[in-house]
Amino acid sequence: MKENKISMNHDLREKCGLFAILGCQDAARLTYLGLYALQHRGQESAGIISTDGEQIFSHKGMGLVGHIFKENILKTLEGDTACGHVRYSTTGRSHIENAQPFLVNFLSGKLAVAHNGNIVNAQKLRKDLESKGSIFQTTMDTEIIVHLMARSRKPSIVEKLADSLKKLRGAFSLVFMTEKSIIAARDPHGVRPLCIGKIGEKYIITSETCALDLIEADYIRDVEPGEIIEITDQGLKSFRYTPKIKHKYCVFEYIYFSRPDSNIFGENVYLTRKRLGKRMAVEAPVDADIVVPMPDSGIYAALGYSEESGIPFEVGVIRNHYVGRTFIHPAQSIRDFAVRVKLNPIASVIKGKRVILVDDSIVRGTTSKKRVKTLWKAGAKEIHMRISCPPIRHPCYYGIDFPSPEELIASDKTEDEIAKFLGVDSLAYLSLKGMLNAMFQNNDQFCTACFSGDYPIAVNKDMRKDCLENIPR
Amino acid sequence: MKENKISMNHDLREKCGLFAILGCQDAARLTYLGLYALQHRGQESAGIISTDGEQIFSHKGMGLVGHIFKENILKTLEGDTACGHVRYSTTGRSHIENAQPFLVNFLSGKLAVAHNGNIVNAQKLRKDLESKGSIFQTTMDTEIIVHLMARSRKPSIVEKLADSLKKLRGAFSLVFMTEKSIIAARDPHGVRPLCIGKIGEKYIITSETCALDLIEADYIRDVEPGEIIEITDQGLKSFRYTPKIKHKYCVFEYIYFSRPDSNIFGENVYLTRKRLGKRMAVEAPVDADIVVPMPDSGIYAALGYSEESGIPFEVGVIRNHYVGRTFIHPAQSIRDFAVRVKLNPIASVIKGKRVILVDDSIVRGTTSKKRVKTLWKAGAKEIHMRISCPPIRHPCYYGIDFPSPEELIASDKTEDEIAKFLGVDSLAYLSLKGMLNAMFQNNDQFCTACFSGDYPIAVNKDMRKDCLENIPR
Amino acid sequence: MKENKISMNHDLREKCGLFAILGCQDAARLTYLGLYALQHRGQESAGIISTDGEQIFSHKGMGLVGHIFKENILKTLEGDTACGHVRYSTTGRSHIENAQPFLVNFLSGKLAVAHNGNIVNAQKLRKDLESKGSIFQTTMDTEIIVHLMARSRKPSIVEKLADSLKKLRGAFSLVFMTEKSIIAARDPHGVRPLCIGKIGEKYIITSETCALDLIEADYIRDVEPGEIIEITDQGLKSFRYTPKIKHKYCVFEYIYFSRPDSNIFGENVYLTRKRLGKRMAVEAPVDADIVVPMPDSGIYAALGYSEESGIPFEVGVIRNHYVGRTFIHPAQSIRDFAVRVKLNPIASVIKGKRVILVDDSIVRGTTSKKRVKTLWKAGAKEIHMRISCPPIRHPCYYGIDFPSPEELIASDKTEDEIAKFLGVDSLAYLSLKGMLNAMFQNNDQFCTACFSGDYPIAVNKDMRKDCLENIPR
Amino acid sequence: MKENKISMNHDLREKCGLFAILGCQDAARLTYLGLYALQHRGQESAGIISTDGEQIFSHKGMGLVGHIFKENILKTLEGDTACGHVRYSTTGRSHIENAQPFLVNFLSGKLAVAHNGNIVNAQKLRKDLESKGSIFQTTMDTEIIVHLMARSRKPSIVEKLADSLKKLRGAFSLVFMTEKSIIAARDPHGVRPLCIGKIGEKYIITSETCALDLIEADYIRDVEPGEIIEITDQGLKSFRYTPKIKHKYCVFEYIYFSRPDSNIFGENVYLTRKRLGKRMAVEAPVDADIVVPMPDSGIYAALGYSEESGIPFEVGVIRNHYVGRTFIHPAQSIRDFAVRVKLNPIASVIKGKRVILVDDSIVRGTTSKKRVKTLWKAGAKEIHMRISCPPIRHPCYYGIDFPSPEELIASDKTEDEIAKFLGVDSLAYLSLKGMLNAMFQNNDQFCTACFSGDYPIAVNKDMRKDCLENIPR
Repeated sequence: MKENKISMNHDLREKCGLFAILGCQDAARLTYLGLYALQHRGQESAGIISTDGEQIFSHKGMGLVGHIFKENILKTLEGDTACGHVRYSTTGRSHIENAQPFLVNFLSGKLAVAHNGNIVNAQKLRKDLESKGSIFQTTMDTEIIVHLMARSRKPSIVEKLADSLKKLRGAFSLVFMTEKSIIAARDPHGVRPLCIGKIGEKYIITSETCALDLIEADYIRDVEPGEIIEITDQGLKSFRYTPKIKHKYCVFEYIYFSRPDSNIFGENVYLTRKRLGKRMAVEAPVDADIVVPMPDSGIYAALGYSEESGIPFEVGVIRNHYVGRTFIHPAQSIRDFAVRVKLNPIASVIKGKRVILVDDSIVRGTTSKKRVKTLWKAGAKEIHMRISCPPIRHPCYYGIDFPSPEELIASDKTEDEIAKFLGVDSLAYLSLKGMLNAMFQNNDQFCTACFSGDYPIAVNKDMRKDCLENIPR
Repeated sequence: MKENKISMNHDLREKCGLFAILGCQDAARLTYLGLYALQHRGQESAGIISTDGEQIFSHKGMGLVGHIFKENILKTLEGDTACGHVRYSTTGRSHIENAQPFLVNFLSGKLAVAHNGNIVNAQKLRKDLESKGSIFQTTMDTEIIVHLMARSRKPSIVEKLADSLKKLRGAFSLVFMTEKSIIAARDPHGVRPLCIGKIGEKYIITSETCALDLIEADYIRDVEPGEIIEITDQGLKSFRYTPKIKHKYCVFEYIYFSRPDSNIFGENVYLTRKRLGKRMAVEAPVDADIVVPMPDSGIYAALGYSEESGIPFEVGVIRNHYVGRTFIHPAQSIRDFAVRVKLNPIASVIKGKRVILVDDSIVRGTTSKKRVKTLWKAGAKEIHMRISCPPIRHPCYYGIDFPSPEELIASDKTEDEIAKFLGVDSLAYLSLKGMLNAMFQNNDQFCTACFSGDYPIAVNKDMRKDCLENIPR
Repeated sequence: MKENKISMNHDLREKCGLFAILGCQDAARLTYLGLYALQHRGQESAGIISTDGEQIFSHKGMGLVGHIFKENILKTLEGDTACGHVRYSTTGRSHIENAQPFLVNFLSGKLAVAHNGNIVNAQKLRKDLESKGSIFQTTMDTEIIVHLMARSRKPSIVEKLADSLKKLRGAFSLVFMTEKSIIAARDPHGVRPLCIGKIGEKYIITSETCALDLIEADYIRDVEPGEIIEITDQGLKSFRYTPKIKHKYCVFEYIYFSRPDSNIFGENVYLTRKRLGKRMAVEAPVDADIVVPMPDSGIYAALGYSEESGIPFEVGVIRNHYVGRTFIHPAQSIRDFAVRVKLNPIASVIKGKRVILVDDSIVRGTTSKKRVKTLWKAGAKEIHMRISCPPIRHPCYYGIDFPSPEELIASDKTEDEIAKFLGVDSLAYLSLKGMLNAMFQNNDQFCTACFSGDYPIAVNKDMRKDCLENIPR
Repeated sequence: MKENKISMNHDLREKCGLFAILGCQDAARLTYLGLYALQHRGQESAGIISTDGEQIFSHKGMGLVGHIFKENILKTLEGDTACGHVRYSTTGRSHIENAQPFLVNFLSGKLAVAHNGNIVNAQKLRKDLESKGSIFQTTMDTEIIVHLMARSRKPSIVEKLADSLKKLRGAFSLVFMTEKSIIAARDPHGVRPLCIGKIGEKYIITSETCALDLIEADYIRDVEPGEIIEITDQGLKSFRYTPKIKHKYCVFEYIYFSRPDSNIFGENVYLTRKRLGKRMAVEAPVDADIVVPMPDSGIYAALGYSEESGIPFEVGVIRNHYVGRTFIHPAQSIRDFAVRVKLNPIASVIKGKRVILVDDSIVRGTTSKKRVKTLWKAGAKEIHMRISCPPIRHPCYYGIDFPSPEELIASDKTEDEIAKFLGVDSLAYLSLKGMLNAMFQNNDQFCTACFSGDYPIAVNKDMRKDCLENIPR
């Protein structure tokens, strides 16, 4: 298993990836594969819960899907219906107790739930529930949803859910499993992706289409923002729990999170990234010898930039794919080792060249700075950095775990200051307008809060993101 | 349904990667890093042996370097001198007993040895030694070398080694460690790479320059074919144990084994691979829309092909970097899952396109066939396959573990038959002459036995490669 | 052939062992040691939860205390207050989720709870709570208690607890931990043991005195039946939540469960067992050569029998202390291997002798039968079996996991029939009256339900013991 | 605070336990069981090597038999012939490389060897062999034997062995396995036990009879001192490689090492220990209330003492059988914790009593001192210590790993000084003559070197016992 703690370039974390399937032999095994395909959405814990219509079977663990689930484990996850989850979280809260799917018993029977997103009014909802005698076992906002459902007076589980979702504010893509059904729901703005697939006659709910591709399932359509989907052995039923409003897709799903081979919000990620790179070449051209991507994050934008500009694309920096999640540091005399162990510039390619270095984004800037240094050391003549999105300046309250604003390099520095900090001859970010124009969809369908500070869902900006661990008492 | 290994693209295996350093604080730690960089040369076992000039410390294990060596282990590997090894082997012989470096006690003290290559007269040498009362504990040809040294009447260890190397026939890059020295040697033809580096004033011996880059060491020169190097606290001494003869570098080190960021035999691997791709575009042009590499093996040749031909390069197939060495297979209904879990074609890129699919080599052809199928399924209009080396038709007796000739698709099929087998519109291999001309070095300095059947070191072709496990008694 | 558990002699299981300490440096470490001493009360899972007055730290695992807690784990259990638990359960319910202490968040803050005993009206209480919107995460009756507390309108946590305990029926020794206090409670009959100790000025609550001995703490007194104890940094406060009623101590704690070096219910277990053996010698004398204990369970009663009768005590059967919890069975040709691997009779001692074989109890009889057989094989001339308690005929609803009545050999067989089944010359059980008279305490202070069927706390005999897993919906 | 080993009472170590069987289905499984029964002879590593007459199968590991061998491992140990070994060694040399059986390849094929004892002229033999070109891979004296055999010019393997054994000086019980035979040998004095058993028509060689009992095999006879036994599918053949000389059985096998249910050197261990205890009561009577054994080592001698003296036997100290090999120490405030976690005195039994405390031996005295202290703390009125062997004053060169003479308390202290050190009212050791007279065998058939300094096999007393790790060069 190639473990990657130093894997994602910018140390950004999203919660999480979802997969569920009903009525299909080998349900847990297909869920395992789906989670395998979604591993990039959460590498901290993973879980699968299955049912044979009567009993519930569950296994969760910390770490990668391939480590947690082995043949002997999968055999115990019986039944033809299953749901699964991969998850990230910050260190303090990374307990096995917080691994999902989350399973509870209440009057209607057993209920498993898996969640991708963030509830912004979680703190208030939880205090209300506790004052009425509810007991919480985790610090996950997901637990609030099932407590709301348990206290709803509505007769059916879908109605209990609709009743509860109306009380939530935030971004959420949800999958529920009972002994007899899979239920999916998406917040009214559709911030996080969630789609419906089909393998033979059996329905699947999952976060990205790459999970469907892996098991040769077909993509049907997205779960609509504001929609509840109920899948039983009678087929699929659709409900709306809220009127349609303007979509606010997370643009960062295209820029960074989703897999390039996925289609999300209806469009392909790889092609979108190339368009961002092409747009960069138009907005910020520069006279240079080679276009070099920061592997692997900058590859697609770099291809676009090269194609548009006609400047040759060179893999000038090699990524070591064997780097595991943890490695042992050398003596301090080896500078910037964490960068070096992962990426090695090829001096024979870089030496004496004017290099356009392309990356998808800059978060803290510290890693980029070290990488730039290794290029200078390899003999670059000039380095011009091009970033295929605008500067990130604001926190995300909808499920991406950016570092605190003080740590975001663009929060208090101009482009020139950042260029100086990174040690490059020039630096250009893609403009907000340029980014939105490069999209296949309409300009106004995206949440750009992390760039613009314009939050489509009202948030109390004083709140801590990980609010449930810090509830004042 | 069982757990399967997915590792390198073609399931080729080489034995092995070497690293040694003398007189440097943190010797074991630097060796660990060197092995990290050489992980691609052997993923089955790894070992480090260190010395403080008096005691010897050792740790070996099965698996990846990052799993075997943890901080607490490295702490036990004391001293300022160390050598390490990563290793492959075929299944039957993959015991921890066969992990290297191999440590023995003989009259001159303790001796650790690490080996990359294959001794072709191992069987005969071993029978001779056994008849004289030598006891063998492993099935590695490496053990023979130390037995020869133990029985040599020469006074010094370097002379004992020279005495012994003269009896060997085959390909070998060797590193020895005693309590006071590092000794390196390379076979007269120089089949496998081995180079000398320096970090500050301290010498390093290693297989590829990427291991030097990682620890910021400088490349000095290659260990010469037929040369013995002795490194002590007095510095480096060079000896020749045999007159100079024509070099026979393994061309497959360039095509497949070595890391693209390494220089081997004095030249860069990435640039060599691009030249092979360019040559392909000249030798086998085709009218098409996009050049798509088979990731990751075909990337560099595909860039060369695209550059030479002017046809756009597209990352049309995405590799899932989270796929570990083992995974659990799905139900049989998912065809070609092992291919699919690792690579996913992007339909939005492939659909309706005439595709030039570039790879570095074809071994059995079965994996390529499955990959081609996924491209058709993604909607390709035409598929033209281009391979940046000639057809592989003959076994390697010098350290590469090709499958048996019957399993090599090119051993009994014409190019047309192979194209048909793979299901492509056209197939072209690079010619032997074209390949050699694309090299930076002279045409006649390479071993091309696997392509031409022309073995520069005499072999008994009836012998089994893994001869020591099958010694007739 | 599969791996089998060999654990306690009769495969009886009790839930569980408790330990808690407040205001003491190294609280988690002392708790670990306390659990070590209580390991005989539960070998399936163990857990420790600690607090530094603000944060809560937790670790639980399946298996033995010594395996679950290592130095690195203990270091994470910070703070000067901790509580711990060792647990048994039957196979179906042995999940890590059911390991204790059980930790919840409710309005009053965090609450950990550990429980020894069984709530006989758990099923009804749980259905009531679920109908009001409570969500359950486990199948443990312990969870009910905290839900009752969460819904209590009383102001303080002790009052909430008193309020809740009044609704419970059954046997329970309970320990709670909040960020600021340890709270203990015992059911009105005092079925399970629970005592108060002191180390320096710091209070401890634990199940048996052997846990106090290990850490050199002093025994203060038992927690009284019907009493709640609250320990804070202000010292110890006592509350009664119910008037005093007749005690009903579990007599089986003396006969089998508790450690011989513990004092429980105020008296020493070893001396009580010897008195039971002496009483046997009076009630059921027999002319014989040697008294041989069934190790280790029969040793103390055998010493009493020998002392009273004057017949020599011989360790005629040797126990192999290296036998682990699991071992691999041999081919079937070795009869009664599970018995043989654990115990080996010494033929030199047994041969030609008239043997009085003493054990503390007989449950199924199948193991005893096999052991008797090995004694015959070792050459015994006569075998007279003496059991230091009456025949076990009825299930326990108060926390001991006897096999179902059909499996209890004495439920439908006379002593003669059992003697025949076991293959002994004679068999005698101690009488109920004899047993009670041998006790240090008054005759009427014991629960003897498993012998007499006289249940001091009303039970619905149709109920399944593990009711919460089988709640009808 | 670190993890500490608690294992056998006196921290004495012997190398090792042996088991071998030929021609029996399930050979590896029976060997596993045999090693299980011999676990007390070595808890550091264990290994089994089996053969189906053509191939050899091997598995070794560090730790206990039950941990090393699981069902899936046993399945890989095919064939109807197997041999196994359990082993101790001191810390420095406890590597997996030194685990036995030791397997080599030499001209005659494969050879596995397992050894119990110590070769006193190992250093010299090894230097001779190395000077002739032999290579050593371990620091075990066992390796010397196979080198001697490999260099022997005799035709058959039994003759090669006889040839080699004549060159050895020391104590050795040996078992060899080839693809076709089991060969056993014992040194001329018969210092260590080795016996022949039979299960059906199949022969077994093992160290103690308890291994035969476990698998229901019959004891046939001991391998004679100076005898070689060869077992093939033709049956058993006996050879003598040296004339008969006076036996020198290790008396410490009776006193401490062997299991009480074993017969060794033809007599039962338990009965011998009781006789030692009885003799003590005659030699060193004392007026007291109870005889209390130090569990478990003193139990049998205490029974003898009580029987002879008529003073009641009481289990006054309880051993915690759940204590594993390692545990985590508490804060330093708990004195003598390592003793306390294992043994707990019952105050109700000890208080106010004049105690005769019986143990089998005293090595360093430090543990005994701590145990005595816990008895005083439990309220003993007087403590009289009785030891069922003479003072240990000299090192053992024949396979027992006593601490160095300076650490042996009796090496420089009188009985009175030791009594004072231990803090007891009186102390008496059994006399050398008394000990020998208590034996079933003749007085002069025992090695008593550790008591008397009278070494029956000449040793160079300056040599370090672990000589092969410290060979001067």
